[in-house]
Amino acid sequence: MPFTYLNPGKPTTFKDRHVTKVAETVRTYEEGLKGEVGLIGLPSSKSSISLSMAANAPITIRTALQSFSTYEASTRRDFKGMTVLDFGDTPIHPTSVEETLERLHVSVLEMLEEEACERYVLLGGDHGVSYPAIHAFQKKYGTVGVLQWDAHHDVRNLEDGGRTNGTPFRSLIDGGLLAGSHLVQIGIRDYSNAKAYDDYCQKNNIHVYTMDDVEEQGIIPLVQKEITRLAEQVDMMYLSVDMDAVDQAHAPGCPAIGPGGLTSRELLTSVRIAAKHHKVKAIDIVEVDPSKDMRDMTSRLAAHTMMRFMYR
Amino acid sequence: MPFTYLNPGKPTTFKDRHVTKVAETVRTYEEGLKGEVGLIGLPSSKSSISLSMAANAPITIRTALQSFSTYEASTRRDFKGMTVLDFGDTPIHPTSVEETLERLHVSVLEMLEEEACERYVLLGGDHGVSYPAIHAFQKKYGTVGVLQWDAHHDVRNLEDGGRTNGTPFRSLIDGGLLAGSHLVQIGIRDYSNAKAYDDYCQKNNIHVYTMDDVEEQGIIPLVQKEITRLAEQVDMMYLSVDMDAVDQAHAPGCPAIGPGGLTSRELLTSVRIAAKHHKVKAIDIVEVDPSKDMRDMTSRLAAHTMMRFMYR
Amino acid sequence: MPFTYLNPGKPTTFKDRHVTKVAETVRTYEEGLKGEVGLIGLPSSKSSISLSMAANAPITIRTALQSFSTYEASTRRDFKGMTVLDFGDTPIHPTSVEETLERLHVSVLEMLEEEACERYVLLGGDHGVSYPAIHAFQKKYGTVGVLQWDAHHDVRNLEDGGRTNGTPFRSLIDGGLLAGSHLVQIGIRDYSNAKAYDDYCQKNNIHVYTMDDVEEQGIIPLVQKEITRLAEQVDMMYLSVDMDAVDQAHAPGCPAIGPGGLTSRELLTSVRIAAKHHKVKAIDIVEVDPSKDMRDMTSRLAAHTMMRFMYR
Amino acid sequence: MPFTYLNPGKPTTFKDRHVTKVAETVRTYEEGLKGEVGLIGLPSSKSSISLSMAANAPITIRTALQSFSTYEASTRRDFKGMTVLDFGDTPIHPTSVEETLERLHVSVLEMLEEEACERYVLLGGDHGVSYPAIHAFQKKYGTVGVLQWDAHHDVRNLEDGGRTNGTPFRSLIDGGLLAGSHLVQIGIRDYSNAKAYDDYCQKNNIHVYTMDDVEEQGIIPLVQKEITRLAEQVDMMYLSVDMDAVDQAHAPGCPAIGPGGLTSRELLTSVRIAAKHHKVKAIDIVEVDPSKDMRDMTSRLAAHTMMRFMYR
Amino acid sequence: MPFTYLNPGKPTTFKDRHVTKVAETVRTYEEGLKGEVGLIGLPSSKSSISLSMAANAPITIRTALQSFSTYEASTRRDFKGMTVLDFGDTPIHPTSVEETLERLHVSVLEMLEEEACERYVLLGGDHGVSYPAIHAFQKKYGTVGVLQWDAHHDVRNLEDGGRTNGTPFRSLIDGGLLAGSHLVQIGIRDYSNAKAYDDYCQKNNIHVYTMDDVEEQGIIPLVQKEITRLAEQVDMMYLSVDMDAVDQAHAPGCPAIGPGGLTSRELLTSVRIAAKHHKVKAIDIVEVDPSKDMRDMTSRLAAHTMMRFMYR
Amino acid sequence: MPFTYLNPGKPTTFKDRHVTKVAETVRTYEEGLKGEVGLIGLPSSKSSISLSMAANAPITIRTALQSFSTYEASTRRDFKGMTVLDFGDTPIHPTSVEETLERLHVSVLEMLEEEACERYVLLGGDHGVSYPAIHAFQKKYGTVGVLQWDAHHDVRNLEDGGRTNGTPFRSLIDGGLLAGSHLVQIGIRDYSNAKAYDDYCQKNNIHVYTMDDVEEQGIIPLVQKEITRLAEQVDMMYLSVDMDAVDQAHAPGCPAIGPGGLTSRELLTSVRIAAKHHKVKAIDIVEVDPSKDMRDMTSRLAAHTMMRFMYR
Ligand SMILES: [Ca+2]
Ligand SMILES: [Ca+2]
Ligand SMILES: [Ca+2]
Ligand SMILES: [Ca+2]
Ligand SMILES: [Ca+2]
Ligand SMILES: [Ca+2]
Ligand SMILES: [Ca+2]
Ligand SMILES: [Ca+2]
Ligand SMILES: [Ca+2]
Ligand SMILES: [Ca+2]
Ligand SMILES: [Ca+2]
Ligand SMILES: [Ca+2]
Repeated sequence: MPFTYLNPGKPTTFKDRHVTKVAETVRTYEEGLKGEVGLIGLPSSKSSISLSMAANAPITIRTALQSFSTYEASTRRDFKGMTVLDFGDTPIHPTSVEETLERLHVSVLEMLEEEACERYVLLGGDHGVSYPAIHAFQKKYGTVGVLQWDAHHDVRNLEDGGRTNGTPFRSLIDGGLLAGSHLVQIGIRDYSNAKAYDDYCQKNNIHVYTMDDVEEQGIIPLVQKEITRLAEQVDMMYLSVDMDAVDQAHAPGCPAIGPGGLTSRELLTSVRIAAKHHKVKAIDIVEVDPSKDMRDMTSRLAAHTMMRFMYR
Repeated sequence: MPFTYLNPGKPTTFKDRHVTKVAETVRTYEEGLKGEVGLIGLPSSKSSISLSMAANAPITIRTALQSFSTYEASTRRDFKGMTVLDFGDTPIHPTSVEETLERLHVSVLEMLEEEACERYVLLGGDHGVSYPAIHAFQKKYGTVGVLQWDAHHDVRNLEDGGRTNGTPFRSLIDGGLLAGSHLVQIGIRDYSNAKAYDDYCQKNNIHVYTMDDVEEQGIIPLVQKEITRLAEQVDMMYLSVDMDAVDQAHAPGCPAIGPGGLTSRELLTSVRIAAKHHKVKAIDIVEVDPSKDMRDMTSRLAAHTMMRFMYR
Repeated sequence: MPFTYLNPGKPTTFKDRHVTKVAETVRTYEEGLKGEVGLIGLPSSKSSISLSMAANAPITIRTALQSFSTYEASTRRDFKGMTVLDFGDTPIHPTSVEETLERLHVSVLEMLEEEACERYVLLGGDHGVSYPAIHAFQKKYGTVGVLQWDAHHDVRNLEDGGRTNGTPFRSLIDGGLLAGSHLVQIGIRDYSNAKAYDDYCQKNNIHVYTMDDVEEQGIIPLVQKEITRLAEQVDMMYLSVDMDAVDQAHAPGCPAIGPGGLTSRELLTSVRIAAKHHKVKAIDIVEVDPSKDMRDMTSRLAAHTMMRFMYR
Repeated sequence: MPFTYLNPGKPTTFKDRHVTKVAETVRTYEEGLKGEVGLIGLPSSKSSISLSMAANAPITIRTALQSFSTYEASTRRDFKGMTVLDFGDTPIHPTSVEETLERLHVSVLEMLEEEACERYVLLGGDHGVSYPAIHAFQKKYGTVGVLQWDAHHDVRNLEDGGRTNGTPFRSLIDGGLLAGSHLVQIGIRDYSNAKAYDDYCQKNNIHVYTMDDVEEQGIIPLVQKEITRLAEQVDMMYLSVDMDAVDQAHAPGCPAIGPGGLTSRELLTSVRIAAKHHKVKAIDIVEVDPSKDMRDMTSRLAAHTMMRFMYR
Repeated sequence: MPFTYLNPGKPTTFKDRHVTKVAETVRTYEEGLKGEVGLIGLPSSKSSISLSMAANAPITIRTALQSFSTYEASTRRDFKGMTVLDFGDTPIHPTSVEETLERLHVSVLEMLEEEACERYVLLGGDHGVSYPAIHAFQKKYGTVGVLQWDAHHDVRNLEDGGRTNGTPFRSLIDGGLLAGSHLVQIGIRDYSNAKAYDDYCQKNNIHVYTMDDVEEQGIIPLVQKEITRLAEQVDMMYLSVDMDAVDQAHAPGCPAIGPGGLTSRELLTSVRIAAKHHKVKAIDIVEVDPSKDMRDMTSRLAAHTMMRFMYR
Repeated sequence: MPFTYLNPGKPTTFKDRHVTKVAETVRTYEEGLKGEVGLIGLPSSKSSISLSMAANAPITIRTALQSFSTYEASTRRDFKGMTVLDFGDTPIHPTSVEETLERLHVSVLEMLEEEACERYVLLGGDHGVSYPAIHAFQKKYGTVGVLQWDAHHDVRNLEDGGRTNGTPFRSLIDGGLLAGSHLVQIGIRDYSNAKAYDDYCQKNNIHVYTMDDVEEQGIIPLVQKEITRLAEQVDMMYLSVDMDAVDQAHAPGCPAIGPGGLTSRELLTSVRIAAKHHKVKAIDIVEVDPSKDMRDMTSRLAAHTMMRFMYR
């Protein structure tokens, strides 16, 4: 290039020679590349019961990675050498939710078949994406255990509205893809669920922790206990983080916000604990609707959650 | 009631004895009732190409009717005696756009079959609702002519995404439900369409008026000319107002905003002219997304447009 | 009705057969009806010292009840069978605060005289509504004890501005309607009050707990202690929740926000503890100004507070 | 002062030696001072029918004067030598609207009695301030003629709500302080008034111009005609600018916004024409609610309106 | 790639086979490439007198190109074949404005030296970028004529604050790089300038058109006249569009907004007229601050302005 | 004055005779005056790496002082007798950061030379102001110890961008104005710094406490320990509060927000503890950008922080 300052096609934000932004460690996937973490966007939110723009979250969360660095001050470790391979976003169908679910499933499975990465980050989208995603992991890895941070059970019936964002775990369990006892729900909130679905959870032996349980037992011991239990029963563990498990003051950008939820610190430390186990292979982060957010706070929290997962 | 001031179930906003709000003239439909205007909500926007919350517009537009009165100062006429029968909103399906389109069609048709009203106001939703709605009018009334205020042709192909909000007039014409020459498009904007679709319009003899045409000919003469022409060729006329025909400064709450569009005054006076013809039986108002609006300006403009149609 | 999908006059939001929204348990009061909880709106905020739109809160809080269900996950109890009778909103006078206060008092008293409910929820408006409301309870029930969550004492002099939202408890005590020792104030904040009014509280033996007291003693023991004490001294207890007791991060929609206040969890658990006592008959929730709020967070918190009171 | 850069008590915004901001020509009134224009704030909006924060407008409009200079490019005239004397804001009473109206009246009258200025700018507050203000001018100057820019007649009955912001001209006419024929209303909007009040205007010979009249006759000829007529009939003329005469796209910060109103240019040029007449002694600018505005656009327009009045 | 749907590194927005977005015609510059239009970002706004984030505009304007297509409906021409070469953004210095101005100048000059394009679009940044940019064109092309759309003269003295965004044309004229008579200013607003600077314009024979001139003469005849005149006197013409020439209702995202400016249509049609002349080689678009904008309206208007320039 | 209510030049907000607002205790500095606390504004933010409007914070923080009173309820102490002398804001240079830094340094030093106050509050601006400010204190008082609340080390190299807001403590240490061991950093956050700068801190013996350290040790013991240590080593202590040490939920108005930070309570109680020591003479509060804030929450927190410092 014959230019003194210009550098066409490259970003021109200020560069401090000693700082590596997380975004700088993300590389577009090409055949043959290997990396620690695979990243995929699942920009689907038309299956949401309430109108949602969560499909835009992969953009804002990736952008948030430009604001954070690879250095973990608390442990004095730098992760600038870790490669994140970005498989891009699955193109969704404008009018067919069924077609979209199929595309999500095929895309996650094909990503896994590349066997390019050790672990995976999946960015929703609404919670409906977890069904095709976990299904893909089940095909590839075998028995899956799931830790779900959520204010809601997400085991609604399918008759009233089809495969909405309120049904992914019902679909997985009823479809025999996930055992009830291999599902752990953390942060279930009062006045946000129905008795019939709590009964379903009990009947299927889903391990449910309400916010009262979290306050009484502490989120860290609780997560440690369940990780240890699951580790003996499953081939891999999958973390499914519905951001509405977090209090509205800390995650204002979720479609279904409310008071009395987790703090940011409780989410981040519990994900950190869980991610340390080597059988934890994947995390999805869902229900972030950037159009409802303030200053992208919820996307920033999602990015931090990613780092807590990746930098174990 | 034993209460001095309380009146359970009734609104308690300030009441001036001499003022009738438009909302006060709206009555819930019951079998056997008759009224000049029928009102129906078509809260469907999952067929939008871009993420849209236009499905919430029937709520905000109805609310705007609480802010306006029945008195038309310019003509010194009071319409407080006109009854608007509200048929409610069509319940949509959370995950199946096909099912939603069917419900919209059946609901509009069943409303017409009641033969309770002379004219109809249909509140979208995105522009996708015009296909099932016009189809219903065609079944009931015969040959339909359509005046479409829009920045876009909305005659996209169906292969790339199914029946989105970019396809209603393509579906009508290709389905033989509407003759191309019976469709008039007003306010088509530069850099907002594709040559292939302009060619489609030409081939089908759709009468297209760009913003340049509006500026040169004036919107009132243009509308008068087309109304007169259509009146001789069709059994009824239907006005389809995509609010994005209006400039972004005047209708900031549309999903696809841009500069260089109609002013509010141009929209309102042209709808007034068109609505005067007795063959004009219906209007739909679409593509108002309250989540993107400022102070419900676009819903207020939609309400004014309703009054220009109703109070002819 | 001859309609397949339409249902005029009924809401068309998505319905899951197993979920009961709190709003679905609210029924418009008619003579002769009985219910556990009576609900009334007191949309008065012109008495506020600073300009306030808190009068709009009964609308937004009632709307928030549409987002929450009757199922309390932490205790596995469903309250779908509890009837809430809605007495509507008291119409206020546009220009006379005195007339408005009279209407509020008469309306609350007339509601109580119906003897239709066991307990009552009163939605402000500003804190000025507590004076006419508590006065009505005092007439009906006898000696009243009050727990007030508030950053402020609200015992200002009346000479400087009349009966503003800063004076309700002064008016009650000076008027002999409430004994100072029967008033408990929780969450009084630094830099938000005056020495003269703290002195007034001391002199009248009001039990004052600052935020430092809350941090040191814990809000639950503190509330339990005072409830136990009051139970022996009064005929009924009334909870008065000024939402500005809560930190600005958790209740951003109050007119007088600031840092260093209660968390949402502290408010909710302390109201839950207090509401368990059978002598607690009423709660008012005041100082929520929806025009200043973000995503109706403060109205959502108010709704949760209602449920903590109702579902004891 | 011993400081090189600091200048305690003085603003530190950037100063270009050749630019005089309008705010720099505003001087706090002290006894004995003389100036061309007197400025007073009337921060009253508790008499508004809908909840309003228009009482804050004197602050934001004065602030807007810091953004504009004294130089009128179109006429090549500099008004940096014109002194504006600021009499401050009238303190309002928190809970008594009657007391507030009395204070406004007394304050405007006392300002006039100082005989310090030739002309006056009065900043509302809501339109209720025009009654006590015009009453004061009538006492001081004799027969008053009023040009009112407004979407509304503001001649409501007083029985339904007392002296609200919807009644000032009714109070003036019924009180014999203003002849109906000396009142000119410009910009009256459809669907924003009641037949009974239009009838009242006709009966009292108020000269009413609807938006249709403005479009057909042009606002400048219309204003010139009425100014000429009134000049022969009255001792002084008073301009009363309710900013909601302007379209919602141009004045988004009014409590009662809607489409189909005046553009900013139409307001500014018509005020300029009117202000040229030497009998025009005063202007009030009302119904700007900064809490509803965007980027203080409506306050900026109010400031421009002030300059069009002052710099004749 | 072994993927059915995924396409790493590529955007996944909905693609209609017949629509070409303007953004799709933009190609990153590489040595040897040729294209009709060169595009460069000049993200500098630290020289602004008031705090400005206009440096972010190149991002939002480029993004807006994704929302508009290459088809010009009014002339039935498709510009999908026109290549826009993107030279990227000039990296600015965080703390040295002088260094930033040098980098801007060098970068524009080096772009021109590539001789890869016929015409150029430069995206600010604040108006300070026009000085180094026009200087570069003067070096490359010889005598330059400038049409400046602006509410302000921008010929401030340099003593009071250095090379701010209020000084670019002063610097050019005093530096002998631009003759006063070769500068045309359109849209100069009342109360937005100083007499001393108007005098400077007169003395230097700058052709100044105020908003009154625009209203009286019409913007199209005015621009045509000046283009014709300049064409005989200069080697090339440069359009400098300060977006604050446009009214605050149409361009709400400028740092210095106010009423009484151009409409969007007036801006767009006048740029179209000017751009038709073959000597018009460049346009800069400045003073768009995305942080102050609403729904990126001002960036969308900037994008339309680009198309009016490019698609002549 | 001949006025009954008017009081030109004085504020007209509601006045309760028993309440003293903090703003009422602030007096413009004049030579010879003495006061407990000196207040100065340092409105500089052009040195920020990211675009910042933190220069506007002195205005919004001073305004927040109008909302808070002098009474500290928790300790039952009234500080209405404490005089705060306001030295005003340092005028900054529009285009030269070097000149601005010089002005800041001279101004702080000249304020100290007045010897009018015992302690000082400095309001930024970005963190770049701490370098010239601490330099001034070092000149006046001798050896300085600094407690820095911050998510970031702020010891970046100066080669990549000059004296930005990321460099103040590097400049102080490298310039020999501050010993590394006299600097304590509290609240350092993960993924927000670089290894090279952590290494710099270690090498220079800066005492660094990450958020993990805060959670484990508790912020109060930690601060007490360091205050005690420093008291023996330095002549004075200076508190530097970068508001981004606080979590995004509690301080949403900082340029660089993120989750996992301090709560408001943690900030306020730790500043209170530190301020009690008599060697603590000054506090700066920086990185509050009002344009990014919500309801001035962050400015309100800054004001509370001031009071915690002043009212020791
Ligand atoms: Ca979920
Ligand atoms: Ca959930
Ligand atoms: Ca359309
Ligand atoms: Ca359209
Ligand atoms: Ca209170
Ligand atoms: Ca309070
Ligand atoms: Ca009015
Ligand atoms: Ca009005
Ligand atoms: Ca300029
Ligand atoms: Ca300008
Ligand atoms: Ca810092
Ligand atoms: Ca920092």
